[in-house]
Amino acid sequence: MSASHSETKSVVSNEDLPCYRVDADGVPAAAEQEAQAGIARQLAEPPAWLALERGVIPAERIRKVPVGPTLLLGFGGSALGARAALEFAEVAGMRPGPVRILDAVDPAVVKDALEWATARGASVMVVSKSARTIEVLTLLEACLARDLRVSTMISDPDPGGEDTAPIRARVRAAGANTLELEIPPEVGGRWSVFTAVGQAPLRAANLDPMLLTGAAMRERDRMRATGSAELARSIAWRGAHPGPFSVLWCYSEVLMHFAAWVQQLECESLGRLREDGSRVGELVCPLRGPADQHSVAQLLLDGPQHGRVTILDFDDDESGIDAGELATLARLRIVEREATRESMTLPTRRLLVRDRGPATLGALMLHHMLETAIVAERMGIDPYGQPAVERIKRGIRARLG
Amino acid sequence: MSASHSETKSVVSNEDLPCYRVDADGVPAAAEQEAQAGIARQLAEPPAWLALERGVIPAERIRKVPVGPTLLLGFGGSALGARAALEFAEVAGMRPGPVRILDAVDPAVVKDALEWATARGASVMVVSKSARTIEVLTLLEACLARDLRVSTMISDPDPGGEDTAPIRARVRAAGANTLELEIPPEVGGRWSVFTAVGQAPLRAANLDPMLLTGAAMRERDRMRATGSAELARSIAWRGAHPGPFSVLWCYSEVLMHFAAWVQQLECESLGRLREDGSRVGELVCPLRGPADQHSVAQLLLDGPQHGRVTILDFDDDESGIDAGELATLARLRIVEREATRESMTLPTRRLLVRDRGPATLGALMLHHMLETAIVAERMGIDPYGQPAVERIKRGIRARLG
Repeated sequence: MSASHSETKSVVSNEDLPCYRVDADGVPAAAEQEAQAGIARQLAEPPAWLALERGVIPAERIRKVPVGPTLLLGFGGSALGARAALEFAEVAGMRPGPVRILDAVDPAVVKDALEWATARGASVMVVSKSARTIEVLTLLEACLARDLRVSTMISDPDPGGEDTAPIRARVRAAGANTLELEIPPEVGGRWSVFTAVGQAPLRAANLDPMLLTGAAMRERDRMRATGSAELARSIAWRGAHPGPFSVLWCYSEVLMHFAAWVQQLECESLGRLREDGSRVGELVCPLRGPADQHSVAQLLLDGPQHGRVTILDFDDDESGIDAGELATLARLRIVEREATRESMTLPTRRLLVRDRGPATLGALMLHHMLETAIVAERMGIDPYGQPAVERIKRGIRARLG
Repeated sequence: MSASHSETKSVVSNEDLPCYRVDADGVPAAAEQEAQAGIARQLAEPPAWLALERGVIPAERIRKVPVGPTLLLGFGGSALGARAALEFAEVAGMRPGPVRILDAVDPAVVKDALEWATARGASVMVVSKSARTIEVLTLLEACLARDLRVSTMISDPDPGGEDTAPIRARVRAAGANTLELEIPPEVGGRWSVFTAVGQAPLRAANLDPMLLTGAAMRERDRMRATGSAELARSIAWRGAHPGPFSVLWCYSEVLMHFAAWVQQLECESLGRLREDGSRVGELVCPLRGPADQHSVAQLLLDGPQHGRVTILDFDDDESGIDAGELATLARLRIVEREATRESMTLPTRRLLVRDRGPATLGALMLHHMLETAIVAERMGIDPYGQPAVERIKRGIRARLG
């Protein structure tokens, strides 16, 4: 994807600006204050993922990740954040090198990815927090059968002894001189985007590996100094409008991968069966605007009044001037977005992102991780771990024998 | 995407086999009988879209659609069906020629598509039922500014006189010798996949233009002769499990475009505000398996008991043998699908599609269109038209001045 229209604008990382602005009605002031207090608590006693310094790989080690065509094997939190970062970087005109992310086992998709990697002499990057993810292990075997080389492996630290996890054992047995990078063990997969999980793919793409992580640190420190009215309003708004689903309607296609990352973060962190038998959580459903005006809008406008809608977009000039010769299209996108917002009958807010740079994405991810942690606190649930998914995994192991 | 593993199997079009099989529990026998009656009524007095012969473009006219690189401009029903058909064809080993579908106005995406089209000397195919779709008109201008040639235009018939719709007028003013193909005026956009809307892209991709339409005709006639136990069970199952959302969980990536087509068909046809003020409809949310086991499964298992889940996949051999050297991956996909299904706490059914050929897709689409029409009949709503979307369109026109 090319994007000369934003080359000058989007690589700017202005630490003084919030990463997005929120327009939302029906936000009770008391709820906003309560959210502010929640933010302050998280920042004062940071959970493991927010102790960002612990996840930074020293420069001399991350530099050992080879720059060049890379096939990344990873699922969920091991892949979605990197995919969003590379998409932002591309559209910001940063020209990331070719990193292809494989998070499927469908032979039709896998075969195509393997052919891509073989034709380019790509190296393989394996991302699995536990070093036991069955899909990753199976993809790894397919790569090794093609004589692809594993250059980098990212996982929990090796406990040593006889406990070597199967992916690590397989990589070592393959005899490749693989760089092993670590995720702090207390940082779960979907909370790991600021660790090696985000840093190594940026390096492989020949970008500054600290683009996301550094931005998240700056944003965290800015919030410690000044709080965040936007985040508090966002949390208060969602609290005021619970429902079975939450639509993330991306008016720029560039935001679709970010929305997939949010879907994963929220569904896995907030979908919980509580001890008293009550159940919480909301289905996050990304939509694509304006295409989905022609597919889902009818249901959202006239259908049952379930759920809430977030219209996500970049905060571009309404004249479309940033888009050069395609200004008419850029302007049309904004006109459609605003006309849709005005027509909505479900609770709707607008979340406008400052620019397309990965630094902004880093700040945006930090906001959403804090939001998720604070919402979980209010629900009285633990947003870490994934008890139900473990049940599926046991079922898979039983079937594989 | 390559798919030698299915080359022999999936181009078979066995008229005697149903296009899918349904495994679902909790289906009341009476509801199944009622659905059978609904199917019989639709087939006996076919709605406009089911009078498929009317939408067939004569062979000598459809042959005038140039074969070769094509950029298709279309939104919603004008694009989603063709995209699914081309994906199925590719994976079935039919090697469709390059047809790229543009259904976005984001400059980052549009610029890339225009560069693709320019580099290949692609011709432009314009699909807009009304010949007034504002996004298509704006994309058309961008194409003409690049000196791309419009080879084919698909829309309602020209009423003649001074009523020439803007897209048609613009195409004619551009002076291109454009082939104009017609959609029967009484067939709405999302019901049009068996008309020129599906036929012309197949032709441009150097495939038999009747692949989808012919299959739908055969399936309709088969159902007239023998009914369809699968379809009746499917309708009865959904009736027994209403909810705010319906997840279409595609275990083969190949089905994702089909799921997007279903999302559009159902949301636009069934999302309705009735005269008595009641509201009906469900949000259709496609998921991707097994990737979304790592992102959404936790919510579906432990979250609130809203909605229902359809696990969609191809009915492949469980040994994975069709996938050749990637058999382990193919088998893993099926193991994961079954383990997930067993773990689900929401009402869950399995819908297994016969094979990856576009003929099967045609039959599958016919099933879903009938299902939607019959569900609408039961809800007492008109599934045609899109009253709410027209409100957004008026808002857009007002803003554009």
